[in-house]
This record gives sequence, C-alpha cells and structure tokens, in this order.
Amino acid sequence: MKVSIILGHPHEGSFNHAIAQRSKQTLLENGYEVFYHDLYHDNFNPVILHEEIPEDGTVDPVIRKHCHEISESDGIIIVHPNWWGQPPAILKGWIDRVMRPGVAYKFEEGDKGEGIPIGLLKAKAALVFNTSNTFEERELQVFGDPLERIWRDCVFGLCGVKTFYRKTYRVIVTSTFEERSEWLKDASDIVSQYFPLISVDER
Amino acid sequence: MKVSIILGHPHEGSFNHAIAQRSKQTLLENGYEVFYHDLYHDNFNPVILHEEIPEDGTVDPVIRKHCHEISESDGIIIVHPNWWGQPPAILKGWIDRVMRPGVAYKFEEGDKGEGIPIGLLKAKAALVFNTSNTFEERELQVFGDPLERIWRDCVFGLCGVKTFYRKTYRVIVTSTFEERSEWLKDASDIVSQYFPLISVDER
Repeated sequence: MKVSIILGHPHEGSFNHAIAQRSKQTLLENGYEVFYHDLYHDNFNPVILHEEIPEDGTVDPVIRKHCHEISESDGIIIVHPNWWGQPPAILKGWIDRVMRPGVAYKFEEGDKGEGIPIGLLKAKAALVFNTSNTFEERELQVFGDPLERIWRDCVFGLCGVKTFYRKTYRVIVTSTFEERSEWLKDASDIVSQYFPLISVDER
Repeated sequence: MKVSIILGHPHEGSFNHAIAQRSKQTLLENGYEVFYHDLYHDNFNPVILHEEIPEDGTVDPVIRKHCHEISESDGIIIVHPNWWGQPPAILKGWIDRVMRPGVAYKFEEGDKGEGIPIGLLKAKAALVFNTSNTFEERELQVFGDPLERIWRDCVFGLCGVKTFYRKTYRVIVTSTFEERSEWLKDASDIVSQYFPLISVDER
C-alpha cells in the first residue's frame, strides 16, 4: 500500500515540515510505502505551459513521475500553510500540473470539457494538514475557509477520492513547544486512523 | 489615476487575454494610466522564498516594482481562468509575493502576526474577471465557488479595498464568436462603470 505526501512550505525548519516528517514516520511504521515530496526542496516548477494542458500535451519527465506516483497511491496526504485561503503557489502548481486529464480525471466521450468529469484516482482517502495564524472563529466568519471546499470538493471530490479529512493547527506564531508536540502526536494519530497498521502478510 | 491589470493565463490567444486587453483599452480611453502585467509573458516567478517573507526580508527588484505599482494603484483588475476553484499558480504566487506586509497590509504594533491586519492598499475598487467551463449551477452546488471568498475577503477585503466586483464568463469551451464578442463588451462596460471617464482637467 502506497501513500503520497506532498509538502508545500519554504522553510525546512517549519512546523509544516515537522507534520510531514511525522506523517511519513507513522506511515512507514504502519507498513506503507511512501512517496514523499517536499516541493521547495525538489525545486518544483509550478508554472504549467499551454502545450502541457491537453491530455495528449507535452509533459516533462518530472511531472510524469508525479503523475505515476499519484495514480499508484492508495492514500494522499497534503501539508501546507493557509496563505490567503489557498495553498502556496508551488503547491497550487502541483495541482495544476499533476492532476491532469487522463491521470486524475477524464471526460465522457464526446464531451468537449464542459461536462462532468469522472474521477480517476484510486486513492481511498486524502488528508490535508494546514497551519494558520488566524483564529478559527475569524477564519470562518471573515474568510469562509475556502481551503475546505478547494481540497474536499474542487480537487479530491472531482478526482474520485471519497474519504476526506482536514485539520488545521493554529495559532502557530504564538504556539508553545508543548502545543506543537501535542499537535504532532494528533497528526500522527489521524494518519494512523486513516492508514492503520498493515500486517506483514498484507504488505 | 492609475489602474493595475494582472493577467494569469498561459496562452496568448486566450479569451482571458482578450478580456485583459479590452479592459486596458477601455481604461486608456477613459483617461487612466495602466500598469499591465501578463504574468506568463513576463515570465513571473511565483515561488516565494523563506527569506522574502518577513517585512524586512530580501525582495528582488521585480517584486519591488510590482509592490510599488500596486501601492500606487487607484484600482485593480485581475483576469484569470478558474482552475480548481483557484487562480493558476503563477497568479497565486503574485499574491504570495506582491501582497506583502508593509505594502498590502500591516499588523498593529506588538502583534506577532496572530491579530487582525490593517489593509494598506489605496485602491478604491477591485474587479475580477474569470472564465470557466463549469456551468454556474454546478459551480455553486458542487464546488461552492471558493474564488468569490478568496478574492473578495481573503485578498482584497484584508488589504483594505472596499469595493469589489467579480464576473465569470462561461462556458468558454463551447462558446460562439458572438457570445465572446458580447462578453468583451460586457467586460468593457463593467470597467467603465467602476473606472468612468476622467475629464482632462482631472487627469
């Protein structure tokens, strides 16, 4: 069983990195194979070109590898800070480039692109871990928390991933070491809940 | 009076380009100075680095120029396709990099970043023109149209731009030449409504 972890944060010492690393560790302990991508570390190019957009377009080898991995994944974990109610650009570009037609979704025959796409991802569950410096009440009242619909409906719902769970850890900027330690344990527990221990026979 | 137009679409022959060009033409006819940025044409780098994030961080000259222009703008027009309920990555990165602390917003003294920021943009109005291949009913019911809250509340509301209007032209992929011509006229009318003719004396 394989799980992709996609991390979008510019600082190696960030709490986002800690969440992604802890998630990886938990998955490995539970017997999963992990595709781990720190997009900043990989120097991922998020800018899709016009020629790359069509299903039969020109796709470079880095993106092909990402597409292969996401198609193979039984689960997906996304980790990023809430920046302007959206992921950082580097992660938005991972969606733009990797969630391709023919990989993540397809249209019915004869559909020019205006119809309802069919999700192609085989992943059973997607988890999204976010960090924020905005209190929950303000996030919901003032901003409406667009990240929830973005990941749940616009991305994973469309691509056929039925089980979705998202957790935001906040407020990071004023958090204590003890809080962050508890949050990491919480993230690990969530990962184990959705991707439980696989017996050696089933691996 | 100055207006910024920020365009994020990878194809020069796109309807997004036509909207941006028509908006520019209307603004010039109405007596405005226009800062026009086709981000793909400019080869804009959307990936913000860790060192660039703090208010006193390292900011390259291209971003400084963008920051100066957006601070100077009396109005802002954004043009992009709806990709996954979000802007294309190149435009998301324009937000990440240009909407900086000290330029687009600031925190009260003593605030570590967890408080309520104060908008700094002097622009009176922001318009967002989007294109989509999803019917409006499905967009609202299935996806919840996150772009509305993203631009209205998360970006322009936070940065102090009080007047906001957004229009989505759809369905592009099956549209006729006549429809697109009407849509361009509609966009031009909207631009003139929010940025009306300035008499020569006032310029």
